[in-house]
Amino acid sequence: MQRLTIDLGDRSYPILIGPGLIDDRAVLAGAVEARDVLVVTNEVVGPLYLDRLVRALEGKRTASLLLPDGEQHKTLEVTGRIFDALVTARMNRDACVVALGGGVVGDISGFAAACYQRGVDFVQVPTTLLAQVDSSVGGKTGVNHPGGKNLIGAFHQPRAVVSDTATLSTLPVRELRAGLAEVIKYGLVADRGFLDWLDASLPALLALDPAALAHAIRRCCEIKAAIVAEDEREHGRRALLNLGHTFGHAIEAAAGYGEWLHGEAVGVGMLLAADLSHRLGWVGDADVDRVRDMLLRAGLRAEAPPIGASRALDLMGMDKKVLAGRIRLVLLESLGTGVVSGDYPAEALRSTLEAYFGRAQ
Amino acid sequence: MQRLTIDLGDRSYPILIGPGLIDDRAVLAGAVEARDVLVVTNEVVGPLYLDRLVRALEGKRTASLLLPDGEQHKTLEVTGRIFDALVTARMNRDACVVALGGGVVGDISGFAAACYQRGVDFVQVPTTLLAQVDSSVGGKTGVNHPGGKNLIGAFHQPRAVVSDTATLSTLPVRELRAGLAEVIKYGLVADRGFLDWLDASLPALLALDPAALAHAIRRCCEIKAAIVAEDEREHGRRALLNLGHTFGHAIEAAAGYGEWLHGEAVGVGMLLAADLSHRLGWVGDADVDRVRDMLLRAGLRAEAPPIGASRALDLMGMDKKVLAGRIRLVLLESLGTGVVSGDYPAEALRSTLEAYFGRAQ
Repeated sequence: MQRLTIDLGDRSYPILIGPGLIDDRAVLAGAVEARDVLVVTNEVVGPLYLDRLVRALEGKRTASLLLPDGEQHKTLEVTGRIFDALVTARMNRDACVVALGGGVVGDISGFAAACYQRGVDFVQVPTTLLAQVDSSVGGKTGVNHPGGKNLIGAFHQPRAVVSDTATLSTLPVRELRAGLAEVIKYGLVADRGFLDWLDASLPALLALDPAALAHAIRRCCEIKAAIVAEDEREHGRRALLNLGHTFGHAIEAAAGYGEWLHGEAVGVGMLLAADLSHRLGWVGDADVDRVRDMLLRAGLRAEAPPIGASRALDLMGMDKKVLAGRIRLVLLESLGTGVVSGDYPAEALRSTLEAYFGRAQ
Repeated sequence: MQRLTIDLGDRSYPILIGPGLIDDRAVLAGAVEARDVLVVTNEVVGPLYLDRLVRALEGKRTASLLLPDGEQHKTLEVTGRIFDALVTARMNRDACVVALGGGVVGDISGFAAACYQRGVDFVQVPTTLLAQVDSSVGGKTGVNHPGGKNLIGAFHQPRAVVSDTATLSTLPVRELRAGLAEVIKYGLVADRGFLDWLDASLPALLALDPAALAHAIRRCCEIKAAIVAEDEREHGRRALLNLGHTFGHAIEAAAGYGEWLHGEAVGVGMLLAADLSHRLGWVGDADVDRVRDMLLRAGLRAEAPPIGASRALDLMGMDKKVLAGRIRLVLLESLGTGVVSGDYPAEALRSTLEAYFGRAQ
């Protein structure tokens, strides 16, 4: 088992990574301090792992809730069902919400934990690669609104993250690939060496090689931990982790949540960011090609839906990363070095959008 | 105009108290830094003050939302309407939510501000005595759940509180009295001298004497400011401000929200706390009588509904102030000195509940 610590003063917490942790009573007893526990999962993950997790939480008073599966259920209404379950189980201020599943379960459960009684304990047990390398770390929680993704939420740090790498064996390959998009993201914004390792290790990761997976998850968490520790509330450097997300949100919003997986949209979004960075003269032609090539080799998409540049721009405008009307984007100074900038010609952005989303409406 | 500061480090904020502030452009320009503002009010307060407030917010981009009036609308569903309004008005991370109204508007608007984009600015413009002395100060926000009051919420400090004392002239007398219950609370838990002043000043306060009102509001805010500065997240001393609330919540829950005003229920709850403190030998008979007398002279109720002690206990059990199954209560060591304690004989609590709620179910 590997162990990292996210250093946030009195809200610091451990990330535990390894195969079989979901059955490890000692690990779970350390991660979940509360006596009363609500395990929130979904209809896909629950049948696979809920009984095992509850068994390993031996000695605690547990209740559980199965949510419907899918991003389209990450809503305020479904959050209400978690509150209902907490009240029905008579969970109090000293209860703990455990999220068993992917990013959707983690985001919505974390938001419910942040709001219930103005904040109860929260532990993440992520079962997707995406959640293990990204959404389970950092304390961002929230739900979608018809007007945009994650428009409603809270910063609420977990007490612990327990990443059982063996659960990836039941993950659909499409979701594994979507998770790889976020893994590539860490390399692109923060670590050229890791990017090179990834480039060589994509086949091993796609084949679920345990050592490769463990290394990738650990390195992503380390990078995220360092960035989050510096900038918990995303006033500055943390925004780097949003590489590809502003473009990606436009893709997801246009397609309707659920059509594209988040990581798939982020993958294409990273390609647009590379393209715009190229137009600014920061990265070369070959760098853009390399990003596209890695996406394709990871089995990801490299084309945006033909919704037109104007609609894409409009959908980007409602994103959280807008500052007083100006769209700040995460761009690449070079492969391995991200930068947050609103300082680019509007025409360059327009050209990138037209190149990928098309001119016509 | 009087000015206090709630000292919370980088989340410190001013409380401004005085007649006519709602029309004061300079005061509002200082309180509301954001350019984009959503004013949330209700169907009763809106027609009286919304236009004036919006006029005084000259130069900003404003939108407004009228919520239905009443505690029964302090729900997650109605919070969703605030999110809808924020999205429709294309409000971003740098927007500000201004709450114009009483405690319900303040609590729900503050909760929406806490969650929208994971937290936007929030300014309180309280128009009830209760909100001016209590709910607008301290950063507690939230909504009710059928299972209990304020079970869903967040700690989210306002950027400023603007208390226009002239707005109390349009407040129904029943609400003025309910506000006085909270004023009396501050005297009971923290300031015997203020309690004595109140005892003598009740007629002046009920007659809306401006000087008496200003003094009472200021002193309550000072007391609350001192306590909140010590204990923002209610791990200890802040719980003193809940005098009467655990009993009061049971009354409100039994009657259905809306039947009793919050302050009315808290008033009776304080009487129960005094009664239990008397049974513990901490305060005398005459002290309990004095609390009852002040409530009656303030035009408040001094009797609980006859729901039976068992049901009352049950309703108290779901309250947020429960710690690992034990009901911690705010009691009185003496008039003017509150104490949070779970260290009392269960029989004493039972006797108090039976004396006020009755034995029968």
